Amino acid sequence: MPLKSKEQYLESIRKLNAEAYMRGKHVEDVTKNGFTRMALQGIGEIYALSKDEKYADLLTRKREDGAKISAYCSIHKSREDLVNRVRAARLMCQKTGVCTASRCCGWDALNALWHTTHEIDARFGTEYHERLRQYAAMVQGRDLTCAGALTDAKGSRSLKPKHQPDKDVYLRVIDENKKGIVVRGAKSMIGGAIGSHEIIVQPGAAFSEAEKDHVVAFAVPLNAEGILQVVDMQAGGERKLESGFDKGNVSFGSSESLVVFDDVFIPKGRVFMNGEHEYAAEVVTKFVLLHRMVLGGCLAGCGDVLTGAAALLAEYNGLSRQLSDRLAEMTYLSEALYSQAVGSAHEGNGTPSGAWFPDPLLANVTKISVSRLPYEIQKIAEDIGGGMISCMPSQFDLRNRKIGPLIEKYYRGSYGVTAEKRLRAAKLVASMVAGPGRLGALCMHGGGSPAAAQMAVRELADLESKKEMARRLAHI
Amino acid sequence: MPLKSKEQYLESIRKLNAEAYMRGKHVEDVTKNGFTRMALQGIGEIYALSKDEKYADLLTRKREDGAKISAYCSIHKSREDLVNRVRAARLMCQKTGVCTASRCCGWDALNALWHTTHEIDARFGTEYHERLRQYAAMVQGRDLTCAGALTDAKGSRSLKPKHQPDKDVYLRVIDENKKGIVVRGAKSMIGGAIGSHEIIVQPGAAFSEAEKDHVVAFAVPLNAEGILQVVDMQAGGERKLESGFDKGNVSFGSSESLVVFDDVFIPKGRVFMNGEHEYAAEVVTKFVLLHRMVLGGCLAGCGDVLTGAAALLAEYNGLSRQLSDRLAEMTYLSEALYSQAVGSAHEGNGTPSGAWFPDPLLANVTKISVSRLPYEIQKIAEDIGGGMISCMPSQFDLRNRKIGPLIEKYYRGSYGVTAEKRLRAAKLVASMVAGPGRLGALCMHGGGSPAAAQMAVRELADLESKKEMARRLAHI
Amino acid sequence: MPLKSKEQYLESIRKLNAEAYMRGKHVEDVTKNGFTRMALQGIGEIYALSKDEKYADLLTRKREDGAKISAYCSIHKSREDLVNRVRAARLMCQKTGVCTASRCCGWDALNALWHTTHEIDARFGTEYHERLRQYAAMVQGRDLTCAGALTDAKGSRSLKPKHQPDKDVYLRVIDENKKGIVVRGAKSMIGGAIGSHEIIVQPGAAFSEAEKDHVVAFAVPLNAEGILQVVDMQAGGERKLESGFDKGNVSFGSSESLVVFDDVFIPKGRVFMNGEHEYAAEVVTKFVLLHRMVLGGCLAGCGDVLTGAAALLAEYNGLSRQLSDRLAEMTYLSEALYSQAVGSAHEGNGTPSGAWFPDPLLANVTKISVSRLPYEIQKIAEDIGGGMISCMPSQFDLRNRKIGPLIEKYYRGSYGVTAEKRLRAAKLVASMVAGPGRLGALCMHGGGSPAAAQMAVRELADLESKKEMARRLAHI
Amino acid sequence: MPLKSKEQYLESIRKLNAEAYMRGKHVEDVTKNGFTRMALQGIGEIYALSKDEKYADLLTRKREDGAKISAYCSIHKSREDLVNRVRAARLMCQKTGVCTASRCCGWDALNALWHTTHEIDARFGTEYHERLRQYAAMVQGRDLTCAGALTDAKGSRSLKPKHQPDKDVYLRVIDENKKGIVVRGAKSMIGGAIGSHEIIVQPGAAFSEAEKDHVVAFAVPLNAEGILQVVDMQAGGERKLESGFDKGNVSFGSSESLVVFDDVFIPKGRVFMNGEHEYAAEVVTKFVLLHRMVLGGCLAGCGDVLTGAAALLAEYNGLSRQLSDRLAEMTYLSEALYSQAVGSAHEGNGTPSGAWFPDPLLANVTKISVSRLPYEIQKIAEDIGGGMISCMPSQFDLRNRKIGPLIEKYYRGSYGVTAEKRLRAAKLVASMVAGPGRLGALCMHGGGSPAAAQMAVRELADLESKKEMARRLAHI
Repeated sequence: MPLKSKEQYLESIRKLNAEAYMRGKHVEDVTKNGFTRMALQGIGEIYALSKDEKYADLLTRKREDGAKISAYCSIHKSREDLVNRVRAARLMCQKTGVCTASRCCGWDALNALWHTTHEIDARFGTEYHERLRQYAAMVQGRDLTCAGALTDAKGSRSLKPKHQPDKDVYLRVIDENKKGIVVRGAKSMIGGAIGSHEIIVQPGAAFSEAEKDHVVAFAVPLNAEGILQVVDMQAGGERKLESGFDKGNVSFGSSESLVVFDDVFIPKGRVFMNGEHEYAAEVVTKFVLLHRMVLGGCLAGCGDVLTGAAALLAEYNGLSRQLSDRLAEMTYLSEALYSQAVGSAHEGNGTPSGAWFPDPLLANVTKISVSRLPYEIQKIAEDIGGGMISCMPSQFDLRNRKIGPLIEKYYRGSYGVTAEKRLRAAKLVASMVAGPGRLGALCMHGGGSPAAAQMAVRELADLESKKEMARRLAHI
Repeated sequence: MPLKSKEQYLESIRKLNAEAYMRGKHVEDVTKNGFTRMALQGIGEIYALSKDEKYADLLTRKREDGAKISAYCSIHKSREDLVNRVRAARLMCQKTGVCTASRCCGWDALNALWHTTHEIDARFGTEYHERLRQYAAMVQGRDLTCAGALTDAKGSRSLKPKHQPDKDVYLRVIDENKKGIVVRGAKSMIGGAIGSHEIIVQPGAAFSEAEKDHVVAFAVPLNAEGILQVVDMQAGGERKLESGFDKGNVSFGSSESLVVFDDVFIPKGRVFMNGEHEYAAEVVTKFVLLHRMVLGGCLAGCGDVLTGAAALLAEYNGLSRQLSDRLAEMTYLSEALYSQAVGSAHEGNGTPSGAWFPDPLLANVTKISVSRLPYEIQKIAEDIGGGMISCMPSQFDLRNRKIGPLIEKYYRGSYGVTAEKRLRAAKLVASMVAGPGRLGALCMHGGGSPAAAQMAVRELADLESKKEMARRLAHI
Repeated sequence: MPLKSKEQYLESIRKLNAEAYMRGKHVEDVTKNGFTRMALQGIGEIYALSKDEKYADLLTRKREDGAKISAYCSIHKSREDLVNRVRAARLMCQKTGVCTASRCCGWDALNALWHTTHEIDARFGTEYHERLRQYAAMVQGRDLTCAGALTDAKGSRSLKPKHQPDKDVYLRVIDENKKGIVVRGAKSMIGGAIGSHEIIVQPGAAFSEAEKDHVVAFAVPLNAEGILQVVDMQAGGERKLESGFDKGNVSFGSSESLVVFDDVFIPKGRVFMNGEHEYAAEVVTKFVLLHRMVLGGCLAGCGDVLTGAAALLAEYNGLSRQLSDRLAEMTYLSEALYSQAVGSAHEGNGTPSGAWFPDPLLANVTKISVSRLPYEIQKIAEDIGGGMISCMPSQFDLRNRKIGPLIEKYYRGSYGVTAEKRLRAAKLVASMVAGPGRLGALCMHGGGSPAAAQMAVRELADLESKKEMARRLAHI
Repeated sequence: MPLKSKEQYLESIRKLNAEAYMRGKHVEDVTKNGFTRMALQGIGEIYALSKDEKYADLLTRKREDGAKISAYCSIHKSREDLVNRVRAARLMCQKTGVCTASRCCGWDALNALWHTTHEIDARFGTEYHERLRQYAAMVQGRDLTCAGALTDAKGSRSLKPKHQPDKDVYLRVIDENKKGIVVRGAKSMIGGAIGSHEIIVQPGAAFSEAEKDHVVAFAVPLNAEGILQVVDMQAGGERKLESGFDKGNVSFGSSESLVVFDDVFIPKGRVFMNGEHEYAAEVVTKFVLLHRMVLGGCLAGCGDVLTGAAALLAEYNGLSRQLSDRLAEMTYLSEALYSQAVGSAHEGNGTPSGAWFPDPLLANVTKISVSRLPYEIQKIAEDIGGGMISCMPSQFDLRNRKIGPLIEKYYRGSYGVTAEKRLRAAKLVASMVAGPGRLGALCMHGGGSPAAAQMAVRELADLESKKEMARRLAHI
C-alpha cells in the first residue's frame, strides 16, 4: 500500500478530470492551468514530504494493521496524535506558505464522522460507522486527497432553513431509493477542491426535525456526474498565471471553490448520515473543534514564513538590528498561536469510537486568537517592509533593457544585495498580506467565523462554577 | 482664471505625454491604459467636484487677490484652512475610495516650501520665496496637479548618504551653471505621478554640510527630458484592466511610481533650495506634519466607504441588526482618526511666512494612530463580510450560460437581493482589504514610517515638564 | 465680584457643614478629616490657580457684563470656549493628578440646563431659563462650587423606572405646592460633593410620560435639610489619613459620594425642569456630550503626570534611554486622547440658547477611547516601574532606626538618588494605578459607561450615507 | 512522613518567629497580625487542600521511594508533571484569589537547582547535587514552605555589578571558611516570605568571572541570625487588618517582602553554588522558564475568580444576558493564558538530572501574554462592575443605624438581592483590580519583566531558519 509520489498525485488529479470553471471559463486541465497548477503544488508538497524520512513522523502514521498511511487520512488515537496534527499543519505552512486546506478539511471530516457515526449507530442501530471504516481504508490504501465540505449557500442568514424560499440553499436529499440518494445544493469556500480526488460532505449547521432532509453526510469523487466547481482566482491571482517572481510565493498556491451538487447520485455505501438531525450539531462541532485547534498551527507556520520574509527584507535594507524587537514581536505572535493549539490538543480527550478531539473550550479560544493575532503579524510585516511593499517594480521592469539598469541601480540593498533579491523578498511579503491566500483570508473564516467561536466560548464558559469561586472568597 | 473641468484635466495629461513604464512596457497613453486610466479618474474627480457648488467650500479657496483657485494648490492661512485640509481629504476619499495622493503631496510640498524658503531667504538673503510665489501663482492659474516627491532610493539604510557607494541613491545636484542645475537620482513611492503635470521635489531627510549636494528642492514638468516613471500595478491591479465589477471599486483607482531623474536640467527659476543643509530637516518636517495630520482625514474617508460596504453586505445577508455593534466599532475607529486630525489642525500655528502648520506632536500622534487603527477596521470588515470575501465567483462566472444561473441561485441574498448586488459589495470590500490601494498600503507608509513618527513623539514629548508635574505632587 | 481665594473656599465649605458619613461615621469637619481634606485640596487648587495670572486665560472668563468670573461656572459661547474647557481639564489634572469632578460636573450641568431650559421655555412657555440665568449669576457672583448629579440608584437594571418595586430608586418629586417641590431618591457616584456648596440635579435617563415624576432638575445647597452624603474612602484611601509620602500624591485627593435626598424641599425658583419628559433625554445628552469630550483632557492630564512619574523612576533607575520608547508610547496615548477631545470641541456647534456643545459623534468617540487607552498607559507605567510598584518599603520603614539604614542602602538609585526620592516616585505611580482616584476608576465610568457611548455611536453613525458611498463606487 | 495540616503549618510558622517589619514596626506574631495572617491563610490553603482527596492528584506526588509528598517540594519528572504544575497554580488561584508565591517560587528554585547542580557537578566534580538532594528530602519530609529569592537590589541599573559603588546591591559572599560562608545583600519582592520556613536563594542574573562573589545559591531558615524582612502592606492593605467584607477577598491575602541578609552564615551543606559564574545564567533561566510558564495558570485562575465576581455583579444588576459577550471575552482571555502555559509544558523536555522544564520559547511567550491580557480582563471587569467599583458604601455604612437603611434601600439589586450581596461582589472586584494582590501587580513582574521575556524571545526566535523558509518560497 505505497504512498503516492507527488508526480503520481498530480497525474491522478489530471486523470480525474473534474469539471471546473474559473472566471467564466471551463478549466481544461487543472494540472496545466497556471493558477490551479500552483494550488496543486501546495497539496502535492504533502505527498513529496511524506516520502522524506525527515518528516515521516509527522506526515505518516502506522495503522493498527501495521500499514504505513498518510497522516492526512488517519484517525487520531491519542493526545500525541492531536499535537502532531497541529505540528503537521505548521510544518506544511512553513514549507509552502499557503493553506493546503483540502487534505486538512477531509482529514478533519473523516475524524468528525468517525466519532459521530459511532454514536449514531449506537443509538439507532445503523451501520454508518462500518461504511465509513471501509471508506477510510480505501482512501488510506489509495492515498487519496479528500476535500471537506460544510458551508452551505445559506440564502438569507436571518431565516431558518425551513423558512428559506429556495430550500436548496442548504444542501439536501431530494430523492432516495434502495441504491442510494440524490442530493442538491452547493457548498462554498471549499479549500483545495480543485486538487482533491474526493469530497466528504457534512451538514453545515444544526437542523431541527422539520429540516432533516438537510442532514446528510456522504463522500463522492469530484468527477461524479452533476458536480461542478467554480474556482475563485482572488485579487492578485493573475500573477500566478505568469512565470517569474512577481507572484511572491514562486512555488506554491492555494485555491477555494464553490462546489455545486446539481442532483448528484450517492450510492448507499457512501452515505454516512441521512436524516439523523439529533447529530447534525455533533458532527459540525467535532469538525470545527479540530479545525479551530489546527488553525493555530497553520497560522503559526504562515507567520513563520512572513517573519522570515520580513527578516530578509530587514537584512537586505541593513536594518536587522534596529528591527529586531519587531521581528521578536512577530515571533511572539506566531508562537502564541502555536502554544494555544498545542494546549488545546493536550487537554483533548478520547471518545468511545477511539477518535480523539481537542478540548472544546480551548479549541474555540485558539480560533478567536487566530482571527486576531495574524492581523498584528501582517501589520508588523508591512511596517518592516516599508513603502516598498505597496510600490515596487515588476520583474518585467527589471528585465527591460532601458529601465532594468535603473531599477538595479536604485533598488540595490545593503552589502551588495541585488535589486532582484530585495524585490523577491518584498513580493513574498506583499503576496502574504494582500495576495491570494493572504493571512487575513486564511485566519478569519477558516473553521467558521470568530462570532461562532465566541458563541461557543460563551456556552462552554461555565460561569456558574466561577461565580461559586467568587462567592466562596467574598463569603456570599 | 477658470478651474479645469475633469475632461480638460484628462486631456492636459494626455498631451503632457510623460514617459512611463509599467510591468516592463512603455505606456503609450496613460489616459487610455486600463490601469492608469482608473488612477486618473481618482485625481480627475477632484476637478469634477471642485466645479460642484456643494463642495466649493472645501475644494476651492479665494486667493488674496480675489481669484478662486483650487484648494489643492493653495497656502493654508488659518486654523480653519488646516481643518478644511483634513475635511477635503476625507471628502475625496469618501467620494473615490482611493488615495488621490498626487494633488495632496504637491499641496503639502508647496506649503512646506512656502515656509522654508521664507526662512532661508531671511537668513541667507536668497530669493527662493519669490520664485516659489511665482511658481505657485502659475500652478494656481493653470489649475495644475503637482506630485510631491521626498523618498530617496536610500541604498543601505545603515549608511549615511555620504558613505553610500553610489551617491545617487539620494537624489543630488551633479552639475550647475548660471541657467540652472542638473539633478540625478530617483524618488520612490510617488503617489499619482502618472496623473500629475508637475513634480515638486524636496530633500527626503536631514543632511549634513558634507552632504549638501543632496539638499535640493525644485519643480519640473513630468515630461521634462530625463524623467521616467515606473508604475507599480500592485497585486490585483490586473482587474483594473478589465471592464465590469470584479475590480470592486468600479470607478476609481490610484497609482504609485518610481520617478527616475536621469540627469534632468532644472532652470534656476524653478530651484527652491540648493545646498542649504541647515534647512533640509525643516522642509521635511513641515511636509510630513501636514501629511501625518491629513492622513487622519484620508483614512477616516476610506474607513467610511469600507464601513458602508460592510453595512451593505450585512444588509444583503439579513444581518444588519446582529452586526450593528461591529459596524459601530468601525465608525468609532474612523471617527477617532478624524478627530485626531482635526485636533492636530486646531492646535496648529502660523509661521512668519503666513503659512499655517498643525501641532507637531499631535500630527505625529495622528500618524501613529493611522498606522494602527485601519488594520482594526479591515479586520472587522473581513469579519462581517464572511468567507465570501476570499472566495466568490467572478463577474464572468455570473455571465456564463451554464454556471451563471447556478451562481444566481446560490449567491442570492436576503429579501430578493440579486447575486450581482452581493458580489459587487463583497468585491468592493475585497478590493479595499487586499486590492491595489488597500487600506494597509495607504495607512502604513504615507507620511513616512510609524517609526519616524514615534521618534518625533519621543523628541517632542517634553518629559522634563511632566517630571516636574510628578515631582510637585510627590514633593520631590 | 471677586474670585474666592483657596482659603476662602475652604472656610466657606467648613461653614456650610453639610451632613456626611464615611465608613459608618459622621464626618465632623470635612476640612479637617484627613481623607476629605485632601479632596478639598484638589478643588481648592482650582481657586488657587484661578488667581494666578498664568492660568487666568483658561480658568477665568469675562462675562457679557464685563465681570470676571470663574470659568467653572460659565456658559460656553464659542468653539474656543469648548476647546478651553478641555484645556482647563488637562491643566487641572496636570496640576493635581486627580479628578476635580465637582466643579466639572456642575459646570457641565449648568451648560446642559442652559440649553434645555431654553428649549423647554420655547415650547411650553415656562420660565425655567430665566430662573437658571439668575441662579447662574448667583453662583458666578459668589464663586461657588456646584456638584452635578445624574446617576440614580436604578434598582434592577432590567426593569424600566415605572416597573420598579421601589419607585425611589429613580429620584422623583413626591410632593409639590405653590412654593416648591419635595424630592426623594439618591444620586450615586457624585464626584467631589463633599467639597461643593451646591448640587445641581438632573434626570439621569430618558423617561416616558408615565414616568414624568422622575423628570426633575433643580439646584440646592448641600446643607439643605434631608440631604446626606456617604463618602467612599476607596481601597488605599487610608493612606490619605496619614501625613508623609506613602499616599503617593502628597498634595491632592478626590472623593465620590452617594447623595441621598430624603424628602428635600426645593423652592420653586430653584426648579429647572419638572415633568417635561420630552426633554429628559436632551438634558442628559447635552451633559454627557460635554463630559465625554472633556474626559479626553482629564485623562491626558493624568496621563501626563503618570508619564512624568514613570520618567522619574526610569531616570532614578538609570534607564531613561532604554525606556524612551515606552515613555514615548505613554505620550502618544495621552495626546491621542487630548487631540480627540479637541477635535470634538472644534466640530462643536452653538444652540439657540447661545450655549455651545461638542460634536455628538466625536464626543462619544472620545469617551470610548477614554475607556480604553488609559489602561495601556497604566500598563506601561507598571512595566517601567518594575516590581517595586507592588513591593516597596513604607515611609515608616525608612524612618525606623534599625531598618531605615538598610532601606537607604538597598533602595538607593543611580547617581546618588536617595531611597526616599525613588520611593516617592514609585508611590506616586502606585497611587495612580491602584490607589483612590486611580486612572481606571476615573476613565471607565466618568460620563457614563462605554456601552452607552457605543450605543450613541451606533445611533449617530449614519450608515445610510456610508452605504450610499459604497454603492456609488461599486455601481450598485 | 505525613503532610502538615493547615493548623500545623500555621503553628510551625508562629514558632519559627522570623524577624519581620511592616510600616516601620516589628511584627510580633505573623499568624496574628491582621495583614500577615491573611497572607498565611493563602499559603495555608495549599496545606488544607493537599489533604483533600479531590485535589490530591494535583497537589501531592508520589516520590520514587513511594512516599507521598507535597507537589510543592517535588521535582518534575515528566511532561505531565509540568502540566500539573500549571494546573495546580490555576487551582490554587481559583481557590484563594491570590498569589501563593512562596511555595511556588521555592518549588521552581528547587527544580532549577536540581538541574544546575547536576550540571555543575558533572563539570567541576563538586557535590552540590547531593547536598540539594538531601535538602530536598528534608523539605519534603517536613513538608516545609520555601520561598525563592532571585531579585537583587541592583543599585543603578545602568552599571554592571562589578562597577557598583556598593557591591552589596547584588547579594554576595563576604566571607568563607571550612564550615560555610557568610553572605550579605538583599533580595526584593520575595512573595510569601512571611509565610515560609526556608528561603532558597539563587543568583539573580548572569555574572562574569570578575563578579563571581555574587554567584551563590543556598538555603537557610528564615529565622536565621542576620535575616530580616520588610513586608509591604500595599495600598488597600489596611482593609486586611479589619474584619468584615470591605477587603473584598474575605478569606485570603498575599504578601511580598524585602529580605535583608545582614551577614548571614550559611553552613556548607546548605550551599548549592559558590562562584561557578558559568552557571549563573543557567540557573536563572531554568527558574524563570518554570515561573513564566506557570504564571499562565495563575492568571487564568485569578481571571476565573474575577470573571465569576463580574458575573455575579451582572446577575445582581439584572444584566446577565446583556453582558454575556463581555463575560465570554473574559473567559477567552483567561483560557488563552492557560492554553499557552499548557502548550509550553507539553513542548517541554527532560534534562540529564531527570528534571523537566518547559519549552524555552513558549514559556517566554506565555509570560509576554501574562503581562498583557490580564489588563484586558481587568478592564472588562471594571466595565461590567460599573461606577460602583470606584464608589460604594463601606460595611460600616451598612451597619450604621441612621444610614444603613438608606444604603439597603438604594443598593438593593434585582430580584431581591440584598445590598450586602451586591457590595460583597463589588468589593471583590475592587480588591482584584486595585487592592493588594491585584492582577496588575501579579502579572507584570512575576517571573521577571516583560522586557526580559521579549529579549529571550528575540534570542530564541531562530530567524535564520525562518529566513530559509522565505528564501525557499521566493527562490532566493
